Parts: sequence; C-alpha cells; structure tokens
Amino acid sequence: MNNGELLATLKEQGTRIDAVMEKDLAIVKSPLLAQIIRHAIFQGGKRIRPLLTLLGASLVGPPPADTPRLAISFEYLHAASLLHDDVIDHATLRRGAETANTIWGMEPVILAGDYLHAHAMTLASEVGGPAAMALIGRATAAMVESEFMQMHNAQEILISEEKYFQVLMGKTAALIAAACEAGIAHNNGSAEQRIAMRTYGTNLGLAFQIVDDLLDYLGDPAKTGKAVGNDFQEGKMTLPLIKTLARADAEDHQLLVALLKATPQERSRQLATARGLIKKYQGFSLAKAQAETLLAEALAGLAIFDEAPAQEPLTGLAHYVLSRDK
Amino acid sequence: MNNGELLATLKEQGTRIDAVMEKDLAIVKSPLLAQIIRHAIFQGGKRIRPLLTLLGASLVGPPPADTPRLAISFEYLHAASLLHDDVIDHATLRRGAETANTIWGMEPVILAGDYLHAHAMTLASEVGGPAAMALIGRATAAMVESEFMQMHNAQEILISEEKYFQVLMGKTAALIAAACEAGIAHNNGSAEQRIAMRTYGTNLGLAFQIVDDLLDYLGDPAKTGKAVGNDFQEGKMTLPLIKTLARADAEDHQLLVALLKATPQERSRQLATARGLIKKYQGFSLAKAQAETLLAEALAGLAIFDEAPAQEPLTGLAHYVLSRDK
Repeated sequence: MNNGELLATLKEQGTRIDAVMEKDLAIVKSPLLAQIIRHAIFQGGKRIRPLLTLLGASLVGPPPADTPRLAISFEYLHAASLLHDDVIDHATLRRGAETANTIWGMEPVILAGDYLHAHAMTLASEVGGPAAMALIGRATAAMVESEFMQMHNAQEILISEEKYFQVLMGKTAALIAAACEAGIAHNNGSAEQRIAMRTYGTNLGLAFQIVDDLLDYLGDPAKTGKAVGNDFQEGKMTLPLIKTLARADAEDHQLLVALLKATPQERSRQLATARGLIKKYQGFSLAKAQAETLLAEALAGLAIFDEAPAQEPLTGLAHYVLSRDK
Repeated sequence: MNNGELLATLKEQGTRIDAVMEKDLAIVKSPLLAQIIRHAIFQGGKRIRPLLTLLGASLVGPPPADTPRLAISFEYLHAASLLHDDVIDHATLRRGAETANTIWGMEPVILAGDYLHAHAMTLASEVGGPAAMALIGRATAAMVESEFMQMHNAQEILISEEKYFQVLMGKTAALIAAACEAGIAHNNGSAEQRIAMRTYGTNLGLAFQIVDDLLDYLGDPAKTGKAVGNDFQEGKMTLPLIKTLARADAEDHQLLVALLKATPQERSRQLATARGLIKKYQGFSLAKAQAETLLAEALAGLAIFDEAPAQEPLTGLAHYVLSRDK
C-alpha cells in the first residue's frame, strides 16, 4: 500500500467515523452545546484514534457491528481534552480556525468538554463494557498525571530523556494505546494480541511526537503551517536537544544551558546556533533513529496477526508517521 | 429519630465515607494533583450523595461490601463539578475557605476536575457496572444541559416555573437521584424500588434548592453565613419571586419587572419592597408548600420498603431539609 492508497483508505474510514458521530451527537439538546461540540469535532482532525480502534478490532476477525460506536468515544475523549487544553493555554487558533474559547468564552467550553468527556465514557461503557472502561480510566488518569508532571518539570531547565518519555507516555501515547487495545478487546482478542496492539499504539504515539519535535527544528513552514524553532524559542526540551545535551562537551553544554536560561527573544536569534550544535552531536539523527526503532518494534509485534487485512494500513500508518513532512 | 440523633448518624456515616475516599485516593501520583483533590473533598461537604447511595442500598437488604466504593464516586462527581464551577465563576470562597482556583490557578484545577470526573466514572463502572454507568451518564449529561439552559435563560428577564424546575432537575436533582437509584440498583432492587428511590432523590434535591431560595430571602445571616437578598440583588429568578410574578396584579407586576431591569445596587436598596410584595402574594408560603408536597410525595413512595432500617434516616433527612435554617 503506497502513501496515496493509504491516505485514500484513511479518508474513506474517516468519513464513516464522521457519519457515526453525526448520528450519535443528535442526543445533544442545547443548540449552543451542540454547536461547540460540532466545532470541536468537525473542524478538522485525522480521526487517528477511532481508526486505530477499528483497525485493531479487524486484526482478530470481522469486528462486531457496534465497534464504530466504541471507536468514536476515543475521538470524543481527544476532543474533550483539546477543548480544555485550549482554555488552559488561552489558545486562539487550532487547525487554522478560531478556538472554541475564542468564539464562545471559557464557561461554555469547559462545560462542553465535561459533557463530551462524560458522554465518551458512558458510550465506551455501554458498547465496550468493563474492559473498555478500565482502559479509558487508566489512559485518562495517565493524561492528567502527565500534565502535572510537565508542570513540575517546567521548573527545571534540564530534563532527562527518561522524564521526556514519561510525559509523552501519558500525554500522547496512553490514549492512542488505549484506542488500539480497546479494538482488540472488543473483538475478544487474546492477552498476547492486546499487548501487541497496545505496544503498536504506544510506539506509534511516541514516534509521532518525536517526528513532531524534528519538524519543529527542520520542517518547511510552507508545509507544516508552523514557524520553525517554536520549541526552542519557548525553551521546550524535546528529544533532539536532550540527546545533544547528554553528549555535548563542557563548552557546548554550557553554551546551550546559557541559551535555555536566556530570554525567548535571545533564543529566537540564536536558533541557527542551537540547530548547528544539535547537528554536531547528531541530536536529529539519533532522535530519528529512536523513532525508527520504536516503529520497527511496533510492526514486529504485529507479526502475530498473520495476514489480517488490517495489517497493511497499520504498517502504512507507521511509515507515514516517519516520513511525514507536515 | 430526632434531629440530634439524625445528625449523629449522618456524621458517623460521613466519617466512614471519608475513610474510604482517603484509601482510594492513594492512587493519585502527582503531589500537587493529590493536594488539589484533597482540598476539593476534605474541605467540608456533607457527603449527602454517597450517604444516599448507602442508605438506598440498605433499603433492600444488607448492602454488598463494595457499596461504599460505588457511593464515593458520587461525591467525586460532585466535587469535580464544583471545581469547574468555581473556575467558571471566578469564585474565591467556598465553605469559608479559599477556592482551589484562588490558591493554585485555573490550569491545575481544570485538570484536577477532569481527573476526578474520569476517576469517578471508572470507579462507578468497576463497582456498579453498566447500571451505575447508565445512571451517571444520564445525570452528568443533564447537569451540563441544564447549565446551558440556565445560560440561555439568563437572556430573559422572566422565567416560568416550568423552566425554573427544568434547570433545577439537571443542576441539583439529577445527580442526587442517580446516587439514590444507584444504591438500589447495586443491591439488585426491583424496577419499582428503583423508581421510588429515584423519586425520593429527585424531590429531596428540588426541595433542598427551594429551601435555599427561601433562606436567601428570609434566613438569618448569622446562621446561613450568607448575606440576605443575594439572589434578588443578582436578578436571579427563584421560586418565591416566580410565584409572585404569576399572581401579582398589573401594577405590582410592573414594579417588580422594573426592579429586575434595574441595577444590582438599585435592587439591593429595594430588597424590602421585593420581600413585601412576595409576602403579599404568598410567594414564600407557596414555595414552602411546594417543598413540603415534594417531600411528602418522596416519603410516601418509600412506604414500599416496609420497615427497612434505612427508612428512618431517609425520613429524618427529608424533615431536616425542610426545617433547616442554614
């Protein structure tokens, strides 16, 4: 399956998922609440999480007819957390559109997030039973715990690779892994199959974020739609920088630490210096290699699902994550 | 059971519930997250909701040993919604103490609310299964929908009694009713028993709020700890005022509407006028009578639980709600 075919498959499945959400969201009574939820969900989004639930379920056989309804609960959880994140960050733009909090203010948006959150869990319980609920319970707890870990880490200048991955596990990987595993569980997969698909989801989530870190330094703004060097300007410790600091000699280490203690304006001016040092110590290639290793492990684990048709898009997705330039 | 005995019973059960929460909350990893959750939960609170789950379960026989763990999920849901409410209202004080958002700011408090919310639903699913989850799903949806209804109503000056009760049903009564019914459901009560206990909870919640409305006009600030006339000053349409407007002659109606369109300062100055008009049209006694009717209906429904020992505190609780002066 080449990239074009993969994207066509994903798009087709995404359209199916959207139709299931459209139908499900008819239960919302308040017009304003419905409007905010629709804005949060239908204003873009790649439907990666529900897609993974569907593909996961397909790995062990034809999925039960209600699998799409379980799948959308993961998109709802994702959307609910973005609604609250944007309130917390006072974010004004997401996916090129005004954020819900910019349009409607904080009050209805916090409440709409709560509604989606509760609805997602109710739906997951109804369709996926205790297995799905246990997965979601662990993932949502991990998401919040990792936000607190990140707040705590923000007080330190240097973050270890271990802490970086700890935060990432909760922030990005936990919900993706739960979406993957819930699909398998819903189709009565074995414990071994659940672990394989959870590992796939975890590693896909981690690799996705590492590639994000790389694009932040090396991406083409015309393609990513974001300015280069945002992370460094904000003093955010991402993997290329962490790897560099761990390998730099005393002089270069001191220089980088001084930059991390400087103002954002100063860091912005010195972006080329930072990029040069990261290249010198192979921070970019080491980070990329780590993403490759994670995805290779993820795919090796899928070998137990011999010849299942869903393996192809899952493999394609892993390659896409690695090669994407936006 | 007199008031003193009732309060002693409630206090004893409250202490048991607190111990179960203490033990359960040991799973929280981040120290700051734990601190915020503890502040939200152990800074006062009457434990009415978990108490009702326990008493409900006791109505149909000795409750299963895990009932307290189901019960605390309702206290968590309540605390989660108060955390978000206080962020939304920029509230600085609750139960005589600084609110969490005043101490720690908006970011960690929104996240702590999300954590408690998700944890409550996970726990309810684990202990109470699909029955508890369905109850909680409906109640949490009703809570958010009623907040949107209230936002919508805020654009109108006159609110009908029907709309007043619609908001109240979601805002206060839905979660109390769910806590009641979940106890019965968890002890395998019949559909008839579930309805009786749900009605008890709904009516108790509505009556509680009506008495709150009355205390706002007629309470003794030394006992309630709140200034008299807050609701009127804010232009809030509560039951005594709604009943009065429905019965007032054209001249008095016009006078009240003019006051509702005036500034809060003007309303504050004219509190005695408003109180006089409400008395003239029996707004207070009609509201009180409605609370009495609701509670009488609630208690009549309990007759099907012949001689269960939990009936006594439930009856005592209804009388306490009606006679409370704080």
